[in-house]
Amino acid sequence: MKALVYDGELRLVGDYPRPEPPPGEALVRVILAGICNTDLEIMRGYLGFHGVLGHEFVGMVEVCAGAPELIGQRVVGEINAACGDCPTCRAGRPTHCPNRTTLGIGGRDGAFAEFLTLPVVNLHPVPDQMSNRVAVFTEPLAAACEITEQVHLHPTDRVVVLGDGKLGLLVAQVLGLTSCDLLVVGRHAEKLDILRRRGIPTALTDEARDVQEADVVVDCTGHPDGFLAARAMVRPRGTLVLKSTFHGVNQVNLTALVVDEVRLIGSRCGPFAPALRLLARDLIDVESLIDAVYPLDEGLAAFERASTKGTLKVLLEIG
Amino acid sequence: MKALVYDGELRLVGDYPRPEPPPGEALVRVILAGICNTDLEIMRGYLGFHGVLGHEFVGMVEVCAGAPELIGQRVVGEINAACGDCPTCRAGRPTHCPNRTTLGIGGRDGAFAEFLTLPVVNLHPVPDQMSNRVAVFTEPLAAACEITEQVHLHPTDRVVVLGDGKLGLLVAQVLGLTSCDLLVVGRHAEKLDILRRRGIPTALTDEARDVQEADVVVDCTGHPDGFLAARAMVRPRGTLVLKSTFHGVNQVNLTALVVDEVRLIGSRCGPFAPALRLLARDLIDVESLIDAVYPLDEGLAAFERASTKGTLKVLLEIG
Repeated sequence: MKALVYDGELRLVGDYPRPEPPPGEALVRVILAGICNTDLEIMRGYLGFHGVLGHEFVGMVEVCAGAPELIGQRVVGEINAACGDCPTCRAGRPTHCPNRTTLGIGGRDGAFAEFLTLPVVNLHPVPDQMSNRVAVFTEPLAAACEITEQVHLHPTDRVVVLGDGKLGLLVAQVLGLTSCDLLVVGRHAEKLDILRRRGIPTALTDEARDVQEADVVVDCTGHPDGFLAARAMVRPRGTLVLKSTFHGVNQVNLTALVVDEVRLIGSRCGPFAPALRLLARDLIDVESLIDAVYPLDEGLAAFERASTKGTLKVLLEIG
Repeated sequence: MKALVYDGELRLVGDYPRPEPPPGEALVRVILAGICNTDLEIMRGYLGFHGVLGHEFVGMVEVCAGAPELIGQRVVGEINAACGDCPTCRAGRPTHCPNRTTLGIGGRDGAFAEFLTLPVVNLHPVPDQMSNRVAVFTEPLAAACEITEQVHLHPTDRVVVLGDGKLGLLVAQVLGLTSCDLLVVGRHAEKLDILRRRGIPTALTDEARDVQEADVVVDCTGHPDGFLAARAMVRPRGTLVLKSTFHGVNQVNLTALVVDEVRLIGSRCGPFAPALRLLARDLIDVESLIDAVYPLDEGLAAFERASTKGTLKVLLEIG
């Protein structure tokens, strides 16, 4: 099968072996997939992953011995494949299973290929009336929902989202539904416009230099610098939610966190069902986030486009 | 009056001006005071404070225009003097008031002197039957209570306290009262013995190399290295409580916090009333934490003793 493989460099391979679903897993024909910043970070050395990239997808179940009713069903898929058997899994935290593999990120080939396999328990049927272009955003939108899963946002909270990239725009839309006093700070007027059209207040970075005393600040910048900016905006005893993953470490004044009693919360993958509910109710504008759609054959060009500063979501049309 | 002053070097001054209590404040004659690691850190440049050091004390109210019933009363005192009027104060977070002064730490002379002043609202009467040697631990014990104020410790939680210094031993005793599954890790068998005598499980650092998957880890090491050690022990989605303040910054892998969705909680000064309740009920062994008592005249020797690695609490007898 065709696949976009990273093994130190990114290559389009024509004869990559088609995966065989082991017991408990389904074979999924990928229809549409999205390029995420994590894919770009992997190509900068993040996590040291080699294999088929890609973890945002919508596809069709082709083979599924354990759950034949899924065959022919359009699905999206949670990306962490847990062992189900270790203390972490049994404690109800399968996305943190130490034995997990992660689609296109760790130990498991990803979605930028004609086929992928995932455990049946990871798959979520897509409502019939939902388009592929919408459904492909389920995974990143679930990551946005993880914030409200972890943190109680009060309607009276002053909340700042830093970053107007793909993730920031989804996070902002999810948090905006909570009725909190939200401000989204970014570097690109045209991206912030996507939010402004939906009535979400925004500011350019330069206009937001004086923002401080926020109850909650969410760093979605994807950059090491985002932490310092977010830190400066959060009030004592406030909450700083970290969504950015990048290759490298930060200099952090831990003592200042102690003195200000700041709460830092790392936040990663989220629950799919809430994300699908938001998409089904058309409460999130994802269409405006699509920058371009490329066929898999032009995968290298798609990555070049996705790597260009300021580009929003680049999709790969596969099946 | 006599005072122990830090102005780039530590000096015992015989004719330091006796403070005048402004409206709303009381003049307190200091009886007994404790040297804290923060005092030592200030002498390494932390916070850039110059003035009379000291913030742990028990004393007697001598002058108190606003609340004459306090005169002659033995008191301990919360160290942050807030403005009471700013949005932070009005939001109920006076210990984070941006206009605050802090006894012996910022903008306000401290307790290593014959007299100090503090706002009346900061003072807590000491129960008659409580000795000065016990009451002087109220401030650091309150800092330990701040952890249970901020974090819900479940009885089924596996909790690790890192550090067997003054603060670690108090924190361990407070957390040990919650019925959680507690382990205290330190470098000094004789200090850990204080806890072991009370039935609290302990381990030397070398014995605890394999500890991981803790639900909550509290860093009381007072060292930059403590963070890494604590980080290695906390489970994904676990809570890392930071109690250490020190001069300098850390290298932190923020991305790993995101991936493991770790919650970091800075924790500083705490509530006095709960600390006094614990002391009054004799639930905390503070007597074993006292290393030595010096008269104020020998304040420099007391600081030298307190700076010696492994020393527990050094007290200054003042009034």
